Amino acid sequence: MSGNPTYGNAFALWCNAAKTPWQAYTRHGFVQGLGDGTLPKSAYLHYLKQDYVFLIHFSRAWGLAAAKADTLDEMKACAATLNTLVNDEMQLHVQTCAQFGISEEQLSNTVEETENLAYTRYVLDAGYSGDFLDLLAALAPCVLGYGEIGARLAQGQASPVYDDWIAAYAGKDYQQACAEVGRLIDHAILSRLGTDYTSTPRWAKLTQRFETATRLEIGFWDMGLRGI
Amino acid sequence: MSGNPTYGNAFALWCNAAKTPWQAYTRHGFVQGLGDGTLPKSAYLHYLKQDYVFLIHFSRAWGLAAAKADTLDEMKACAATLNTLVNDEMQLHVQTCAQFGISEEQLSNTVEETENLAYTRYVLDAGYSGDFLDLLAALAPCVLGYGEIGARLAQGQASPVYDDWIAAYAGKDYQQACAEVGRLIDHAILSRLGTDYTSTPRWAKLTQRFETATRLEIGFWDMGLRGI
Amino acid sequence: MSGNPTYGNAFALWCNAAKTPWQAYTRHGFVQGLGDGTLPKSAYLHYLKQDYVFLIHFSRAWGLAAAKADTLDEMKACAATLNTLVNDEMQLHVQTCAQFGISEEQLSNTVEETENLAYTRYVLDAGYSGDFLDLLAALAPCVLGYGEIGARLAQGQASPVYDDWIAAYAGKDYQQACAEVGRLIDHAILSRLGTDYTSTPRWAKLTQRFETATRLEIGFWDMGLRGI
Amino acid sequence: MSGNPTYGNAFALWCNAAKTPWQAYTRHGFVQGLGDGTLPKSAYLHYLKQDYVFLIHFSRAWGLAAAKADTLDEMKACAATLNTLVNDEMQLHVQTCAQFGISEEQLSNTVEETENLAYTRYVLDAGYSGDFLDLLAALAPCVLGYGEIGARLAQGQASPVYDDWIAAYAGKDYQQACAEVGRLIDHAILSRLGTDYTSTPRWAKLTQRFETATRLEIGFWDMGLRGI
Repeated sequence: MSGNPTYGNAFALWCNAAKTPWQAYTRHGFVQGLGDGTLPKSAYLHYLKQDYVFLIHFSRAWGLAAAKADTLDEMKACAATLNTLVNDEMQLHVQTCAQFGISEEQLSNTVEETENLAYTRYVLDAGYSGDFLDLLAALAPCVLGYGEIGARLAQGQASPVYDDWIAAYAGKDYQQACAEVGRLIDHAILSRLGTDYTSTPRWAKLTQRFETATRLEIGFWDMGLRGI
Repeated sequence: MSGNPTYGNAFALWCNAAKTPWQAYTRHGFVQGLGDGTLPKSAYLHYLKQDYVFLIHFSRAWGLAAAKADTLDEMKACAATLNTLVNDEMQLHVQTCAQFGISEEQLSNTVEETENLAYTRYVLDAGYSGDFLDLLAALAPCVLGYGEIGARLAQGQASPVYDDWIAAYAGKDYQQACAEVGRLIDHAILSRLGTDYTSTPRWAKLTQRFETATRLEIGFWDMGLRGI
Repeated sequence: MSGNPTYGNAFALWCNAAKTPWQAYTRHGFVQGLGDGTLPKSAYLHYLKQDYVFLIHFSRAWGLAAAKADTLDEMKACAATLNTLVNDEMQLHVQTCAQFGISEEQLSNTVEETENLAYTRYVLDAGYSGDFLDLLAALAPCVLGYGEIGARLAQGQASPVYDDWIAAYAGKDYQQACAEVGRLIDHAILSRLGTDYTSTPRWAKLTQRFETATRLEIGFWDMGLRGI
Repeated sequence: MSGNPTYGNAFALWCNAAKTPWQAYTRHGFVQGLGDGTLPKSAYLHYLKQDYVFLIHFSRAWGLAAAKADTLDEMKACAATLNTLVNDEMQLHVQTCAQFGISEEQLSNTVEETENLAYTRYVLDAGYSGDFLDLLAALAPCVLGYGEIGARLAQGQASPVYDDWIAAYAGKDYQQACAEVGRLIDHAILSRLGTDYTSTPRWAKLTQRFETATRLEIGFWDMGLRGI
């Protein structure tokens, strides 16, 4: 189910163009370990702490997206995503971590690792130096990749160990958010590059952005596995 | 009631430093006309249409603020403001305009006038080229000035003609938002420049930002009065 | 000679699409006064002082262009322009002003007027919120419009009063710079939107950017004429 | 000679505050190998190719610095640095690589590695999301660290193998550039935070920026050593 068509046309094309890294990312050892429950607890906790820092910079990118949007509808979508991230999801993340004995203070003292920093700053620079489309292409592997991973793991005979993680990303709310982001991306591309968008050089660049961001996501899982 | 202390210390100091333009802005002919009901309807409608365009760019600035924030608390405040603006206030604005026979299509076809554009792009560039504090100092005259104007007009014997406008900005919700933005500003300054902030050169620059933005607000009312 | 073809294809198309404001800008009363020598000296001095502030923000925009460029060749062009502007042209401007008895201190104390601020901040926000093409489309009316105006005035029977101004912009160096910027724009568009670029929605947006920036240039001349 | 005082006060304080990572960076195995000639040629070539990509994004950061500067003097310094980088140093780099049989085409096809990308995007985001000082603090470890390394290796009994590299960074031109950047930093800090700058929270944040950037430089050398 690579390039889930529910998440839009551009996404399906991007996944196809970046097939090898996309497989390496969505079927990474870390992901397989989440599914079959063999992921060491220490790796998971390491991931959760880094993910807290990640979510902050990821949210900043959605704020930037609102600033770079062309239409009120684009702004509404970005604003809602940003608001959900910082005013709801962060709270959930803090609660999840608390269940594993990680305090909010520990979370906010987490030293950001290079692979983590590399991805979010790549996204932010793509946004600041490029335009709204560059930003979305760099954000897509995270938003939609997690949706694809969650849906796949939930379909399999997943071990209950990391049930909560799988349920969160396979759940209706998250899957619907993915469908909306997919529509946002498709609409944003059409309204800027036109129906023949795949023949523009911009499209090739956006595909590169998506591929680079996917490579950086692989690094993120590598970092997770290295977890201490 | 210049520099309403309810809106924080920095605001009170800024208003005091920019006393002449602040008076010219908050006691502008357009404002007096809103209060005593003498503002020509055509000027008000002109203002409403320009304000629609203004709100879009103003919202973009709050999205940018979320991207430039230093802490999760700052991000939460900016995200909530942005979300309220684009997902609630814009709708209210559209409804108000509809009552005056201005359709949403007309609103989105409004040609942005120079004084309008000047203010919002000044704010956005202050944010992009400066930091979070530059952005807040440039946003403050609008957010807090409207709060001060609304509160003053509501205390007087205002004519009922522009009651709705006055009630919106004098109302509890908007006044509370002003108090929160005032706290955001004070806290952001303290956590960057320290308790002795008024002795830093940065403070003088921020005061200049506030004053320039206030001058641009005067231009916005001038544009309103010129309304066709 | 509207849309001088020496300055590239995109420019010619843009001028054609924005014919009315382009005429209003390039044949503005201020420009005619420069040509026939009837422009009041006070208006010219007013313009020179505002232009000093303008050049600073205009240069900042070229710095930003270097940051947003896609290729080393684009960066080289932007870097050279920026360097010439701040390390050579500003000096020339200061010397010109000195001849009219305006000191460098006076220049740097100039209070930026709204029409001036409106244009440069529009350009900067176009760059920050959009991409490299948005930035170039917003810069083009200034760079290339001055080239077109200078060349036209030099061809006519210009009065000697503002000879220096005309010679500077009609001169070989400036005309060559215009041709290079025209090539930069054409190449940047082709390498992003492809040969069929005029059929993309992006092109329509860029044309709008060019037109808005042209309107803001008209405001700049209005401000000049108002000169005190 | 950690925190070479010739490069200014802020730099000396930053090096002192980040002593451990600063030592790890400036006395890294890659650096020692450059000095005693034991660095494998393959590692050096790997580094040269990555450094080509690095220089492009590093130059973009100096363009951004020009856009974010407060004064004409700051702009002049940034513009000159940017111009030298893209119009001179890149050419030198290409020539150096050609001597080792690496073509310009190979250089421009280099796939940017994560450690490389991490540093430059961190710098760019520091600039875009922060202000001019954040940008300088993030740029400093590279500019001034190379100066410090070059000067130290030139003083020792360096092997002739990597003589050219050492001579470039120990040379008068580069050392003078370091002194100028050091003055730019000191002046920029004083003119924003005042003489008592070390007591502001901003200073602590800038020190953190410097330390994070230094950690990312260590990663860059690690990447070099891993060179294939």
